[in-house]
This record gives sequence, C-alpha cells and structure tokens, in this order.
Amino acid sequence: MKRRKTRLIRIGDMPVGGGTPVSIQSMTSTPTKDIKSTLDEIKRLAIAGCDIVRVGVPDMESAVAIRDIKRESPLPVVADIHFDYKLALESIKSGADGLRINPGNIKKAEYIRDIADACKDLCIPIRVGVNSGSLDKSLSDNKPVAVAMVESALGHIQILEELDFFDIKVSLKSSDVNVMIEANRLFAETRDYPIHLGVTEAGVDTQAIVKNSIGIGVLLSEGIGDTLRVSITGDPVIEVEVGKLILRTLGLRREGVEIISCPTCARKEFDVESVVRDFDKMSRNVKDYVKVAIMGCVVNGPGEAREADFGVAVGKNGAVLFRKGEVVKKITKDDILKVLLEELSVYNK
Amino acid sequence: MKRRKTRLIRIGDMPVGGGTPVSIQSMTSTPTKDIKSTLDEIKRLAIAGCDIVRVGVPDMESAVAIRDIKRESPLPVVADIHFDYKLALESIKSGADGLRINPGNIKKAEYIRDIADACKDLCIPIRVGVNSGSLDKSLSDNKPVAVAMVESALGHIQILEELDFFDIKVSLKSSDVNVMIEANRLFAETRDYPIHLGVTEAGVDTQAIVKNSIGIGVLLSEGIGDTLRVSITGDPVIEVEVGKLILRTLGLRREGVEIISCPTCARKEFDVESVVRDFDKMSRNVKDYVKVAIMGCVVNGPGEAREADFGVAVGKNGAVLFRKGEVVKKITKDDILKVLLEELSVYNK
Repeated sequence: MKRRKTRLIRIGDMPVGGGTPVSIQSMTSTPTKDIKSTLDEIKRLAIAGCDIVRVGVPDMESAVAIRDIKRESPLPVVADIHFDYKLALESIKSGADGLRINPGNIKKAEYIRDIADACKDLCIPIRVGVNSGSLDKSLSDNKPVAVAMVESALGHIQILEELDFFDIKVSLKSSDVNVMIEANRLFAETRDYPIHLGVTEAGVDTQAIVKNSIGIGVLLSEGIGDTLRVSITGDPVIEVEVGKLILRTLGLRREGVEIISCPTCARKEFDVESVVRDFDKMSRNVKDYVKVAIMGCVVNGPGEAREADFGVAVGKNGAVLFRKGEVVKKITKDDILKVLLEELSVYNK
Repeated sequence: MKRRKTRLIRIGDMPVGGGTPVSIQSMTSTPTKDIKSTLDEIKRLAIAGCDIVRVGVPDMESAVAIRDIKRESPLPVVADIHFDYKLALESIKSGADGLRINPGNIKKAEYIRDIADACKDLCIPIRVGVNSGSLDKSLSDNKPVAVAMVESALGHIQILEELDFFDIKVSLKSSDVNVMIEANRLFAETRDYPIHLGVTEAGVDTQAIVKNSIGIGVLLSEGIGDTLRVSITGDPVIEVEVGKLILRTLGLRREGVEIISCPTCARKEFDVESVVRDFDKMSRNVKDYVKVAIMGCVVNGPGEAREADFGVAVGKNGAVLFRKGEVVKKITKDDILKVLLEELSVYNK
C-alpha cells in the first residue's frame, strides 16, 4: 500500500505523518478537571494501545488541570478548545502536547497570533478540525458538503499559514461516511498536512464499528490518513481496540491474536463458535502478532490453517494441529481449546 | 457512487447485477438434511433482511432435502456443492435457485456438461468461488495470491463459457482483507459477471465486523460488488444485520434507525451512552429509514441534530427536541428517552 506523502509533525514524542506508522488516538470521557478520573482513563487507554489522548477543555479549571495530568500521563495530551483563546494559552502553559482549535473561530487576529507564537516556541502542533455538522451555513450553500468542508478547513489553515505557522494537522469529519470519505480525498489533493481520520457521532456498538471501519478503512486503503480516532459512544477503550483492528486488517499494524475461523455451516463437525469465543477471550493479553486458525470443516480447514502460525482443522474423526504449515499431531475434539492455548503460550512471554 | 456495469442474473426472483440493488446473502448453519431447523433459520434470516440464502450440500440427503426446504422458504435457495456432480444434479432437481460449484473441481467433462445443461434449462446461475485458502498450490507459486485467485476463477469460468454457459456469478474470498480487495479489483477488469463480495473466515465479534466492513466496504465504495455475504462465526442473523449496516453506511440501502450520537467527552451534560443504548434496543423493529440524533453537548449537538429527521441536543439547563431542522420544544433531561420514542412512533407503522 502506497501512502500519501505528508509533512511530519510531532505530538509530544509521537510522530504523525511523514510516512511514520498510523497512530491511534482517543478522547477522555471524564471531566478534565477531575484529574484522578482523567488520569485513570488515560492509563487504561495507554494499556489498550492508544498513542495520543485528547482531553476536552471547556473551562479554565480544565486548562489548568492539564499540568497535573501531563505530570503522570503515559501519553501525549492534546487540548481540545472550541472558541476561547485564553483556554488555549493556558493549556499551552500547562504543557499540552497539541492543540485542537480552529483559528477561524477566534474573533481577534492578535489572539490567534498569540496562540500561534506560543505553539511555535514550544513546537506544539495545531489540529484544524472541520465537522460537517457544525459547518458555517453560508459555506455550504449550493455546493456539496464535502467541498464546503474542505473550503472551511483551508480557511482556518490560511490564517495559520499567514502567521508562518505550518505545524498543522487536519481532520474532516462527518457522521455521513460518504461525505467524510469524499472530503478527505479532496483535501488530500490540496495540502501535504497530515490527516487525522475520523467518522463523527457514529453511534454505539455494531453500527459504530461498521461506520468507523468503512470510513477510516476506505481512506487508509487509498493511502490517506496519518493518525486516526475511532468514534464510539461509550468507553473510549473500545475506540482504541477498534482502531487497532482497522490497522491490523489493512496490514498497517501487526499486533495481537488474529483468529481465522469459518462461519459455521452445514458442514461443521464441532461447535466452532464456542471454542473461538473462549479462545478469543483467553488470548486478549497477547501483544505479538499471531495468526491462529480454528476451522470446523475439512474443506477449507487445512488450507486456511496452512497460512496461520498455528491452527486446528476438525474432521469427522477428530482434529489435527498445524504449526506453520506442518501437521504436528492428531488431537481429540475435547482437547482443542487446551492445545490452542498451549501453542499460544509460546508467543505470550 | 458509480457502480461497475455487470451482467444481470437472477437467483430465483432476486436479481443480482445489472445495476440492481446490492443484495444480502447468508448461509445456514444447520445440517441441511434437518429440514425443520434449516427452515427455522431461513425464516429468521428473512425477517432480519436476508435476500438470498445458501445451504451446504455435503451429501445426497441434503440435496434431496432442498425440495422440502424450497416449498416453505421465503428466500431463494443456493445449493453449495464442493466436488460431487451428483449432488449438484440432485440439488437442481430439488429446485435450487442457484448453485455454488467450481467446474474445475469436477473430474469428467461430461459431468460438467450435464450440470451446465440442467442449469441452462432452468435458468439457474452458477457461482464460481475462489478462496485463497483452498487455492491450488501450483497456481500460486511465484505470483501474488490475488493474481493466482483471479487466474483460478478464470479457469473455472472458461470451462463454463466453452459450454456456452454465461449465467455466472463470481466470488474471490480471502481471510486476508488486502488480498481479497486486490483480487476483486483485478477480476473486475476481466469480465462483466456480477461479483459476490465476501471476506472469509473472518472470526467472531468485533474483529469480524471490522474485517467484513473494510473488505466489503472498500470494494463497494469503488463500485465493485453486486451481492454480499458477511462472514462471522456464529448466528448467521448477525451477518445479515452487519450486511445491512454496511450498505446503509455507503448509502446503498436506506433501512432502519441510524443513530447519530457523540462519543462522550469532558463536555457531556448527561449520560449519552445509556440513552443511546436503550433507544437503540427499543428501535430495532423500525423498517423505514430514520436518522435520529442524540447529542450530549451543545457544541456539536444542534448542528448534527439539524441533519437528522429528529433529535435531541442537551445543554446545561435541559434539552431541546428538533424535528427536520426546527426546534419543537424544550424537554427535561429525564424525558429524553420517552420523547425520542414518541417521535419514533410516527415512523413505526
């Protein structure tokens, strides 16, 4: 997969763009001024594999709280500010590693200059983020929403560029996945700033996973996207897990246990689902990339299992364990889960 | 979205290709010879929104059972046969609406001719299906797997074409999503047969949803794909639900309640997640397409809610109900779920 060439920026010690690996972001759901809860969530996100965390800054107390959060946060912290330049300046003072703010939303030119200067001094990038939902109505009249989004993003960007500020990252989000895909494709042709991918307000559970996977997946498969944030209503840890799965699916990250298992059909010789589900639960803590096949059918089973690091294929008269393409031994059907976990233990150190 | 031009075929009364809507398939997980269980599952699949169902035919009893299944099935039935031409002929006699069989796997030319002739007489299409896992080793030496898959598919197709049989559908599946995407892109350039999309052996739960969404979603977004089967280990009804979500996400089908809800952040003013989850559960039976916004924040809330058929945006001092862009009334936070369900009842007739 050929990735789009983008400018390299750094959020704290995490590179974004310039051909570096696609990073995973999330956002805390706790009140930022509640330092303990926010840090607890950041630590859970870090363990889940998050690379960069964003915190909302709706008030001065939250901007100040970033100081204490930064002291213990294992992840770079981005401050998310909507209109108030004072919150931006205070977040910078508190040690934020990045800002998410749209300069076009700040009324006075001198305030924008203050922010840009402060960011320049400390090498803090600014993310310009356009959301189709909060798009200025005058921009979106008589043209496709995706075009209006790109124009809006370029408007914010130009303000920064005129201040000689180029440490920029851009996001173009929508809850309509087609709009989001189109807007990012269009933007990718205009500037070389790294792109932060995301579908917004994607809902919960399966609907959210499908929307995020398609929106982010389509663009990544075209080489567009330098960092991503999955949006799911609920515990942000799930956003990180889905982000990792999206990257793994496209071969952009290799982590954890990938299970190759057949959808069950009339040919199945044992209860694939319950073994897969149990094995999945018991293998979540493995960090290395391991491909494991659990096949309930002699037709596709051995073929797929050959491609895996190890696997089982189950026929009428028992099961067979494979390891990197070679049959290791016959096993009984009752031992399948046990044998799979034994094999896995080699990778789990 | 511009869709690839393909030949129109029909599985029973369900058109596939030729610019007709992308249909959703699944496969029963019951033994086909267990007619009652199989019919129960087919009926559940039909209620969930499945358009075409496939049943495995591993033995003669299953081929014969198709007769009784067809009598009561609300869906067209495709018989899935691997090697035995007799099972194919018997399935045709039983009234199968489609076959999934690879002619290259049948040893004698006369047997293939018998099947093609019988299918031609009854307008039964044949799906040629190539799976990277069961690819002939000699084909895949020294070339990319995707290329070998396309060559394998073309080999099977040529056998049918030489018999003047063109009522063909093709699938190129892999558990490696990049391989599956590449194989389908390559095939789409060679012939105009409709394509059945699928990632195979995708595993369970979130991993499976992500892999299917990306593999199928990327291709559909390029206009490739005429019918699809999501592959998830477990109850096939979930495959249909995910298939519908993939199509809805890309604007290829408009059904059911789409919830626009923000990922929670430090700005949230009430418990978005629990309301969204409750509303999601209580709105599953709605068939019409309705876009509902549930926003826990004044920043993005009203903007997103404007795009929805109706929605709520919640601020510090209560909530507001919107209907097609217009504020209808103020409501209390405790009434949000109740009011949403009342609004929904208009669409649920």
